[in-house]
Amino acid sequence: CTIHAHCTNVLPAVCFVWQLSMIILFGVFVRYNEESDTHWVDYRKENNITSDIENDYYFRYPSFQDVHVMIFVGFGFLMTFLKRYSFGAVGFNFLVAAFGIQWALLMQGWFHSLDYTDGKIKIGIENLINADFCVAGCLIAYGAVLGKVSPVQLLVMTLFGVTLFAVEEYIILNVLHAKDAGGSMVIHTFGAYYGLSISWVLYRPNLDKSKHLNGSVYHSDVFAMIGTLFLWMFWPSFNSAIADHGDGQHRAAINTYLALASTVLTTVAMSSLFEKTGKLDMVHIQNSTLAGGVAVGTAAEFMLSPYGSLIVGFFCGIISTLGYIYFSPFLEEKLKIQDTCGIHNLHAMPGVIGGIVGAISAAAATNTVYGDLGLENTFDFTGPFAKRVPTIQGGYQAAGLCVALCFGIGGGIFVGLVLKLPIWGDPADENCFDDEIYWEDGHSTLLKLNQAPFMT
Amino acid sequence: CTIHAHCTNVLPAVCFVWQLSMIILFGVFVRYNEESDTHWVDYRKENNITSDIENDYYFRYPSFQDVHVMIFVGFGFLMTFLKRYSFGAVGFNFLVAAFGIQWALLMQGWFHSLDYTDGKIKIGIENLINADFCVAGCLIAYGAVLGKVSPVQLLVMTLFGVTLFAVEEYIILNVLHAKDAGGSMVIHTFGAYYGLSISWVLYRPNLDKSKHLNGSVYHSDVFAMIGTLFLWMFWPSFNSAIADHGDGQHRAAINTYLALASTVLTTVAMSSLFEKTGKLDMVHIQNSTLAGGVAVGTAAEFMLSPYGSLIVGFFCGIISTLGYIYFSPFLEEKLKIQDTCGIHNLHAMPGVIGGIVGAISAAAATNTVYGDLGLENTFDFTGPFAKRVPTIQGGYQAAGLCVALCFGIGGGIFVGLVLKLPIWGDPADENCFDDEIYWEDGHSTLLKLNQAPFMT
Amino acid sequence: CTIHAHCTNVLPAVCFVWQLSMIILFGVFVRYNEESDTHWVDYRKENNITSDIENDYYFRYPSFQDVHVMIFVGFGFLMTFLKRYSFGAVGFNFLVAAFGIQWALLMQGWFHSLDYTDGKIKIGIENLINADFCVAGCLIAYGAVLGKVSPVQLLVMTLFGVTLFAVEEYIILNVLHAKDAGGSMVIHTFGAYYGLSISWVLYRPNLDKSKHLNGSVYHSDVFAMIGTLFLWMFWPSFNSAIADHGDGQHRAAINTYLALASTVLTTVAMSSLFEKTGKLDMVHIQNSTLAGGVAVGTAAEFMLSPYGSLIVGFFCGIISTLGYIYFSPFLEEKLKIQDTCGIHNLHAMPGVIGGIVGAISAAAATNTVYGDLGLENTFDFTGPFAKRVPTIQGGYQAAGLCVALCFGIGGGIFVGLVLKLPIWGDPADENCFDDEIYWEDGHSTLLKLNQAPFMT
Repeated sequence: CTIHAHCTNVLPAVCFVWQLSMIILFGVFVRYNEESDTHWVDYRKENNITSDIENDYYFRYPSFQDVHVMIFVGFGFLMTFLKRYSFGAVGFNFLVAAFGIQWALLMQGWFHSLDYTDGKIKIGIENLINADFCVAGCLIAYGAVLGKVSPVQLLVMTLFGVTLFAVEEYIILNVLHAKDAGGSMVIHTFGAYYGLSISWVLYRPNLDKSKHLNGSVYHSDVFAMIGTLFLWMFWPSFNSAIADHGDGQHRAAINTYLALASTVLTTVAMSSLFEKTGKLDMVHIQNSTLAGGVAVGTAAEFMLSPYGSLIVGFFCGIISTLGYIYFSPFLEEKLKIQDTCGIHNLHAMPGVIGGIVGAISAAAATNTVYGDLGLENTFDFTGPFAKRVPTIQGGYQAAGLCVALCFGIGGGIFVGLVLKLPIWGDPADENCFDDEIYWEDGHSTLLKLNQAPFMT
Repeated sequence: CTIHAHCTNVLPAVCFVWQLSMIILFGVFVRYNEESDTHWVDYRKENNITSDIENDYYFRYPSFQDVHVMIFVGFGFLMTFLKRYSFGAVGFNFLVAAFGIQWALLMQGWFHSLDYTDGKIKIGIENLINADFCVAGCLIAYGAVLGKVSPVQLLVMTLFGVTLFAVEEYIILNVLHAKDAGGSMVIHTFGAYYGLSISWVLYRPNLDKSKHLNGSVYHSDVFAMIGTLFLWMFWPSFNSAIADHGDGQHRAAINTYLALASTVLTTVAMSSLFEKTGKLDMVHIQNSTLAGGVAVGTAAEFMLSPYGSLIVGFFCGIISTLGYIYFSPFLEEKLKIQDTCGIHNLHAMPGVIGGIVGAISAAAATNTVYGDLGLENTFDFTGPFAKRVPTIQGGYQAAGLCVALCFGIGGGIFVGLVLKLPIWGDPADENCFDDEIYWEDGHSTLLKLNQAPFMT
Repeated sequence: CTIHAHCTNVLPAVCFVWQLSMIILFGVFVRYNEESDTHWVDYRKENNITSDIENDYYFRYPSFQDVHVMIFVGFGFLMTFLKRYSFGAVGFNFLVAAFGIQWALLMQGWFHSLDYTDGKIKIGIENLINADFCVAGCLIAYGAVLGKVSPVQLLVMTLFGVTLFAVEEYIILNVLHAKDAGGSMVIHTFGAYYGLSISWVLYRPNLDKSKHLNGSVYHSDVFAMIGTLFLWMFWPSFNSAIADHGDGQHRAAINTYLALASTVLTTVAMSSLFEKTGKLDMVHIQNSTLAGGVAVGTAAEFMLSPYGSLIVGFFCGIISTLGYIYFSPFLEEKLKIQDTCGIHNLHAMPGVIGGIVGAISAAAATNTVYGDLGLENTFDFTGPFAKRVPTIQGGYQAAGLCVALCFGIGGGIFVGLVLKLPIWGDPADENCFDDEIYWEDGHSTLLKLNQAPFMT
């Protein structure tokens, strides 16, 4: 085994110490908000809220659960496509997300939900959704390094990733007052460039030693389709989960539904067109079909209009599939970025497109289309931002995209350097994409499998 | 490869041209409705709507997402049972549904949601559900021809299928004013006879050339159970998704829950009883357990009563399982209808039963049971139909069933003839049920698998 | 085949007779309640309910569907880990649950929802959830005897299990007026000890004859992760499904979300720490990660506070994993309890901890923390219990735990003795954990598989 003895205790130590830290920090800082506290019954009366159904819980809980499925089953199973790394895909995704949501509740809480009267973070259902969102950024990054890092490295990536996320999110949403309900910029652009930069720093020139494991078998591709479909189906919930009550959530769901439908057709078209035999490639179907959901993340709550959503999805299916065919090999050979899941094609490019679409559609917003009240509500032109107009808003949206890119690339390079330290128990080149070095049960099973002429 | 070179470009061409047409048609016709538009905030005030939670989105979104899962994971995975056609099952299901929902929004929109003041289709959450429903009809039809048609043929089937669906739905629901919340007639009867008729026209006398692939392996049967269970669990959402707010949705969910539970027991009983050894057959468990959900589709929102639902489920489990044992071989040998998934047993017979149950329970409705207001609400005896009485309604329900049958059979024969044209790249008899001819990734994988003594 | 000819007809007979009994009993007893009946429209007016959205359906339907997924996909797939018993795991789980929910609607209806004016059970969405909950107890018990009993035995277990459940639930919730929203005591403690006691009575000294089948293969472990994740993700819905409207449901979801996150980290830590090589064991990841959800079942709706939830999850991950490593072998060797899925570690111990946590947190409740009205609402100190105070409530909570334990152990021993009668067609020792004796399709498939050097 290539993992040194002293390293085998690093994972338990990190898990214990970090979880204990979470308990202490939650003890000091985190409380229920007024909608999840038993004082809700008084709060309701004082605020003339006529029914329990007005509790934010009922506006957001169905979307929350859909997002939760995307994080744990969606991302987890999407990565099970590797023939011998399904345990690592779904298991480490589980570990990382379970830690990340706790740390995200704290980091995002300090920036967004701190009650200055008592210095406590007050949490409710929206915080749970945002924590899931925050973790999504780190899971996207995991896609780039899948099979090449240890679970401890993933936890470190998540610790820093969530921290960076909370800061960039604060700058983009609060300081710049950009809108990004579905996180094209905040989640996808940041997460993808964060992961790609880490992968660039951790470049392995001899990765072809484990080339025979860097591929799928028949049933591992079917497992991956479980991930694909749950991401695809629930993406309307993702983009609408924290949008405004009423028309905001409603419109975000419609736009995402349409963009994703459009993407499927152009993905299939491109996949078939660029294979010599006209056949389809499972890699494209599993990934590029999702690009439209990424790309309407920012503009989903705007008046993008149904055909606007279809157009965004149309181009993203094309660009994302071309990315898998031409750009991924280029990234690996020329830029030395090894991107196991092709997150550049699924999250990075569509995320940037999403930011641009958001900026343009914000700048083009008019009172005629939105209505006076609708415009104010949608872009939240209130308080210190009461005088902002759509064209200016478009500029701030574009600035937000740049912030996400800078945090992703800069943060990724820094964290990549941290992960290069020889203390994290990362696998040797010949052990990449192999569950055997981290999974006991896999070990015994795989031994048996080795006696057979092929893996399933 | 049996597909001619010129055919390999048909799939990309169809996808691109059709998707572009969708964009143009959506640009001309489709807009947000007042509940998904930014003008909702004004609309709310004008109509004295007290809270955002009154937006139809919150009444229907949870059901919508469940239906969405049924369409993409439910139907997709139910068909993965074939040992070598799991990619085609889940992948082509994905493609067809993604196209179909767009075309359905247009077709159903012109018939049901056209705003005559500006000539635009106004869409909201209910339209998304109806589009999913419409596509369900085509996916049912796919079950009959699974493994025997090309993706282009499936797209053509869907183009015509959605068109026919929208017309028959308009006749049944609007002209005849029949009720069919869960679509026993509109979706299941139509979809099943549409698929069976197509399969009849496309009869392949030499299909036994690919007989060795027309069956399951152990893990493909487990994958299929994912489809079965998600269909089974979410069927209460399917039948209640567009039922009336309040008691209508509530009752439809209860009736469906009960009918399905009852079906499971009689399916298990029949499966064990009719096997010589008393063992169970996975085919029955995967399919016949769902028949009860089909058969309460029409009557789910009526006062069918809990034991009425159990009775419907009881008989459908029996009939559907007997269908697999006796009727499917008869259909294939005598009527020359090859029905890969046995949709005749899961959708056709239970759908017709559902239409009959709906007609009888509508005809038997009384003011005593429903209450005066309840009767009017449930059957929508308002406007031009204000004078209709239950017995008459029962007759119109039965007429609706006939319309669904006619459209299914007639439309299927016509579309079957279109699909017989030798331009669609359908597989040769010896290539049926084989992913290898349409899937690149499958190809390389299957090559490896062929070195092993069996497929997994 | 070891099943006698006369036994092969027992399963169909039981299914038919019991389902017919259900129909008769539902016909006599079960009706819609006022929220699912067409008279809702009148009821709404009479009670000044301003909107259809106030129907309990909209408060609970999303949670209900999540619970439904846990019962059928969650429990079903969690047990697919065995290499050759995936059909039995997911198929018998399906059968048992479909029967159990019907019987539970009756049993729980007689105790909780009987309308004394007309002697009818009035059902609505909350009854469906409770029926699913009731069945969960029996499915937990199934985990202990997985692979060692016949489907008829499982049905008998469920018949008695649901009956016992309804009685103990009535005593705990109504007589003792203990609170148990997520069922740590009522569901998990009862269900686990019920199953363990049955397994104890049915002890098989020669079970090692089928030892080679009592384990997983690579892809069966991936299937099991589908079960694990859907249980884990939807557990917040489980614990909040029948909690009070408003803050009650909101808080229960938050507490469960946090407890489960914490459990994942300590499970991973313990799994790695106690393996010689520092590797992870899939058994722990599949099961112990869920222990936190069990253990906050009772207290989830209390003011446990976010850090309190994390602490409960922290210890349960440790205890449950240690249970798999040390306690399960001890149970089998010393106490002669063969526990296939390790329900002692996942449900029994965490369930008891959950009861204790509930008792302590109830006893420690104060007006300062809860508010006067909040305290009364949360613990339902009204009517005959108006004078109860938290410290007393804590005592009754502890008494509830004892009742659950007694019913589980006592009921399990009794039912175990019934199941020992030689009439149920249970498998011989060498046929345990083998689908081949109950599944036709499995038979033919497995025959093929036997020609290959290994199983998948």
